[in-house]
Order: sequence, then C-alpha cells, then structure tokens
Amino acid sequence: MDGATRSSTVRTEVRSLLDGWVEAVTAQDLDRIMACYVDDVRAFDAIAQLQFTGRDAYREHWKICFTMCESMAFEIHDLDITAADDVAFAHYLARCGGIGPDGKEHLGWMRATVGCRKVAGRWLVTHEHYSAPFDPESGKALFDLTP
Amino acid sequence: MDGATRSSTVRTEVRSLLDGWVEAVTAQDLDRIMACYVDDVRAFDAIAQLQFTGRDAYREHWKICFTMCESMAFEIHDLDITAADDVAFAHYLARCGGIGPDGKEHLGWMRATVGCRKVAGRWLVTHEHYSAPFDPESGKALFDLTP
Repeated sequence: MDGATRSSTVRTEVRSLLDGWVEAVTAQDLDRIMACYVDDVRAFDAIAQLQFTGRDAYREHWKICFTMCESMAFEIHDLDITAADDVAFAHYLARCGGIGPDGKEHLGWMRATVGCRKVAGRWLVTHEHYSAPFDPESGKALFDLTP
Repeated sequence: MDGATRSSTVRTEVRSLLDGWVEAVTAQDLDRIMACYVDDVRAFDAIAQLQFTGRDAYREHWKICFTMCESMAFEIHDLDITAADDVAFAHYLARCGGIGPDGKEHLGWMRATVGCRKVAGRWLVTHEHYSAPFDPESGKALFDLTP
C-alpha cells in the first residue's frame, strides 16, 4: 500500500490533530497548543525568525504572538494529508489573523505545512512551516492574495 | 519501527532526491527540476502567489524565476528528514539567491519544507514550501537573518 492509498483512518487521525491545534490557537490556549508538539519541535513561523527549535523557544514565541492579537482567527482550507502508518505531512491554505492592538481586524491568507509523527500511539507535530509569499520587487509580504 | 528509527537507507534515498534537485536548480536545468515532481505537485513558493498547482503552472513559474537571476546558488543546511517506507518529509535552511539583472549578488537564508512519496520505486516531490519570514511591523520580508 503506498502513501496515496493509506486508510482514511490514518488521515482522520492526523486531521484530528490539526483540528485540535486550531481549536487551541483560536482559544489562545497555550498549554493545549504546546501539547500538540514533540519536545524537539522545529518550527518555521511566518514572522520574526528563521526558525524556532525546541518547545521552550517556541512557547515563548507563541506568547509574543498572542500579545499581537486580542483575538485569533484560523481556518484550514484546501487540506491535503499524505500519511504512512506513523509519518505524515499535511499542507493547506490558512485564512488567519485577528484583531490587533489598533482594534482593527487583520485577516489574510497564508500557507501552512505540518510534519507529524505517531509517537507512542499518538500523532504529534514535529515540524511546522507557516508563511506569506512576498513580492520580489518590493520585498513586501503579500497579504492580499486570495486562493 | 517508528519514523525515528527508519533505516538510514530511506533517508539516504530522500537526500539523494534533494541533492539532485539542488544540482538541477543551480544548473537552471528546467527539465531536470520538473522530473523531481509528481504531476499534481502543489507548491508554496516564496514569491508571487499563494500556491502553484500542477506541473504546468509550476514549470511556468520556474521559467519566470530564472529570468530574475543570471545565476542560481542554493545550499542545504541543517537538514532533517523524517521518513517511512514510502512517505517522507524534509526541512532545512537554504542559503540561496543569485546574480540579478542589476549585476548584484542577492543571497540570503530561507526556509524549506519538502514532502515526498515513493511512486513506482522512485522518490518524488509532491509538495514543497519555501519562504522568508517577515517583520510584522513593516510587513517586509526579512532577508538579513542568519541561523
């Protein structure tokens, strides 16, 4: 059985991990977000740094992110999951943002890729990558793109 | 055997796919680049669009990229590969860029995540995600970050 024909059960398990993460993010529930990751998670987030390595560094980054938005919105669109029995990756477009300190809503489309492993019977995120593309002429991130 | 303990053979096969892709990119060999992808590749590139879906659309994008640089440099650093028998994902920091039409060298660090499947005995890229993080205050991509 190759990756394309893995049982839908495995993809459902991975989808459940992603949905739980989204619930935790929109609730700004830091403990529940962090429970989705392995200890040595390596994250390429959309802002600020090239990478965040390990749970402690990433947790600090999440705390800072929450200070930027009074509320968080996050929706998964156009999700693809490719899964073996204990290794999977998912990619999707995210409609995300929130209400900033200026009281204005900042929502836009971004891209997300999530790498997962099944550890002791439970799917966890080992890697994630969020980004907005940029305009090579202006060097500015492109927040107004739509799928 | 879980994802962490897969044989090094599988990771070597995936590394070989990535190295071949890098050789093709630095040689600006469009056919060889495209041979690394499945027909329905879905790519989140660092510039211009949210996503590129399918071989034809992505090939056109690569052509445009080559018009932006007279030469291409691309190095893989800090590579992690997580692999099952026929599904794998890899993530790394890329030192990349080239000489632009202005005659100046534009090199910087970016992030890369690559999703792969073994199809008919051969590893192929089904998904890739390249990006630079941006500064949330200025909205500008951060090209001066170093690992």
